[in-house]
Amino acid sequence: MPGARPIFYVSDGTGITAETIGHSLLTQFTETEFKSDRMPFIDTDAKAHEAARNIRAAGEAAGERPVVVSSCVNQDIAEIIAGSGALVLDIFEPFIAPLERELGKSRQPRVGKAHGIVNFDSYHQRINAMNYALTHDDGVRLDYKDAEVILLGVSRAGKTPTCVYLALHHGVRAANYPLTEEDLETDRLPAKLRPYKNKIFGLTIDPDRLHQIRQERRPDSRYAALDTCKREIAAADVIFRTEGIPVLSTTHASIEEISSRVLEALGINREMY
Amino acid sequence: MPGARPIFYVSDGTGITAETIGHSLLTQFTETEFKSDRMPFIDTDAKAHEAARNIRAAGEAAGERPVVVSSCVNQDIAEIIAGSGALVLDIFEPFIAPLERELGKSRQPRVGKAHGIVNFDSYHQRINAMNYALTHDDGVRLDYKDAEVILLGVSRAGKTPTCVYLALHHGVRAANYPLTEEDLETDRLPAKLRPYKNKIFGLTIDPDRLHQIRQERRPDSRYAALDTCKREIAAADVIFRTEGIPVLSTTHASIEEISSRVLEALGINREMY
Repeated sequence: MPGARPIFYVSDGTGITAETIGHSLLTQFTETEFKSDRMPFIDTDAKAHEAARNIRAAGEAAGERPVVVSSCVNQDIAEIIAGSGALVLDIFEPFIAPLERELGKSRQPRVGKAHGIVNFDSYHQRINAMNYALTHDDGVRLDYKDAEVILLGVSRAGKTPTCVYLALHHGVRAANYPLTEEDLETDRLPAKLRPYKNKIFGLTIDPDRLHQIRQERRPDSRYAALDTCKREIAAADVIFRTEGIPVLSTTHASIEEISSRVLEALGINREMY
Repeated sequence: MPGARPIFYVSDGTGITAETIGHSLLTQFTETEFKSDRMPFIDTDAKAHEAARNIRAAGEAAGERPVVVSSCVNQDIAEIIAGSGALVLDIFEPFIAPLERELGKSRQPRVGKAHGIVNFDSYHQRINAMNYALTHDDGVRLDYKDAEVILLGVSRAGKTPTCVYLALHHGVRAANYPLTEEDLETDRLPAKLRPYKNKIFGLTIDPDRLHQIRQERRPDSRYAALDTCKREIAAADVIFRTEGIPVLSTTHASIEEISSRVLEALGINREMY
C-alpha cells in the first residue's frame, strides 16, 4: 500500500513563501494524505544535488511521486531539483511573464529578498511593536496613548497571541486589557479606557470553548468553571453592545483571521512582513 | 506624471497567502514603485462589486493599470474582480490542473481553509508554545526541561522575537537566556544550561548594530556604549566557539530567516502555521 504523498518546500531562501502557498493549495485536496518537509537555504549546486537525491528517495520509499513546491530564484538550482523526478510547482514562474509585460520591465532575481531585512526602518518598527505588545500585555501597563489597537476581552479570549501577531507581521502597536470581575460589574467601559474608545476591539468566545481552554490552565478552579465562563462572557458582551465596540468571536477563528478582522475594523492598512 | 502602481491583495479569506506571494513577486521588480492595499474577506457579490469599483478608481487616480494578486477560491467573485480592468494574477489557478492530474483527484474549493482553525490540537500547540515563550523569555524562568529550543545571546541580539515567531508559526517551545556580565566572565556555558546543550542555538550580532539598537533603548548608557557591546559580543562568541554551539549573526537576518536557520540547525521539522 502506498504511503502518504511526499511534499517538499524547496527554496534558496527561507522557503516561507513556498510553504505558505503550498499549504494553501494542499488544503484544497482534502482526500489526499500528505507528508511535508521543508528544504530551506538550498543555495549551492551541492546542496541542490543532495536535496534532489533525498526527494527521489522519499518518493521511492512512499511509492508515490513527490511534489515539490519551489521558490528557487536561481534557475541552475531549479533544474537540479527538477532532476529528482518530482512534480515541480514553481510558485513564481507563472506570474513573471505577465508582470514583465505589464510593468514593461524585466525581473531582477535576487535570492532571499522576500524575507530578508529590506530596510532598518521597517525592522525597527516591527521590533518596537513587539516590545510594545509584551510590555502592554494583560493590562500590565495602562498607558495606551501610543497604542494603535487595544484588544478587550475576558482572560483567555485570544488577546495576547493576536497582539503579538499584529506586532510581528504588521508592526502595529497593540495593547490588550483583560476585563476583570470588577470591570464586569458595570455595563460600561472601564474609565481608563474611555479616552481610547476608537482603538478598541472586543474579543468574545463561546463559553464552552473558554471553559475547555481555562481547564487546561487551571483544572477545576473557579476561574475555569463553566458558570464563571458563561457569566464573564455575558457581562463582556453587554459592555461591547452598550459601548458599540466592534467584536469578533474567536471560537473558530485563527490568529491570522482575528488579526485581519481587527485591522479591517479599525481601518489600519499596513504592509505585511 | 503617473503615480505608484496600485497593487491589491484580494481574497475571500484573510488574503495572507496572496499577500505573501505578491510581496515576494514584487521584490523582484525593484525599479517599479508600488502602493499596496489589502482587501480581505471579499465573500459576497456586493463586496466584490465594491472592491472592483475601488480598484478601478485607484487605477484612474494613479494613471496606472492596477495589479490584483488574488486568492479568491469562489469563481463568481473572481470574475467580478476581473471586471475592474486590472491585471489579475490568480495565485492558485496555475497549479490546480497539474496537481489534479498528479493526484488523480479534483480540488474541493473551500474558502478560508488555509488560515482557519483546522483542528484544535494544532491550535493548542501553537497557543501553548506562545505561553511558553512568554513565560521563558529573558531568563525569567530557568526551567528548560520542556524547551525544544534555547536561544542564547547578549541582550538585544534578537532572541525574543525569534522565540515568539517559532511559537506562533511552528508551535515550537522556545526559551531564551540572556548572557549576563557574570556569565560572560567565563568561557563556558552557564552551569544551569549545560544539561540542555543540544537544544542551544547562539545569536550574535555586529557590535555597531547592537550599539545602535541599545542606544534607542537607553541612550548614552553604559549598557549601550560601543565598548560594552564589543566586549560582550566578543565574550559571547568565545563561549559559542568553546562549547561548539551553532551560531548565527542576526545583523542582516530577518526574524523569519533566523527562525528557519534555528529549526534547520536543531533538526526540528514542524509544519508551518
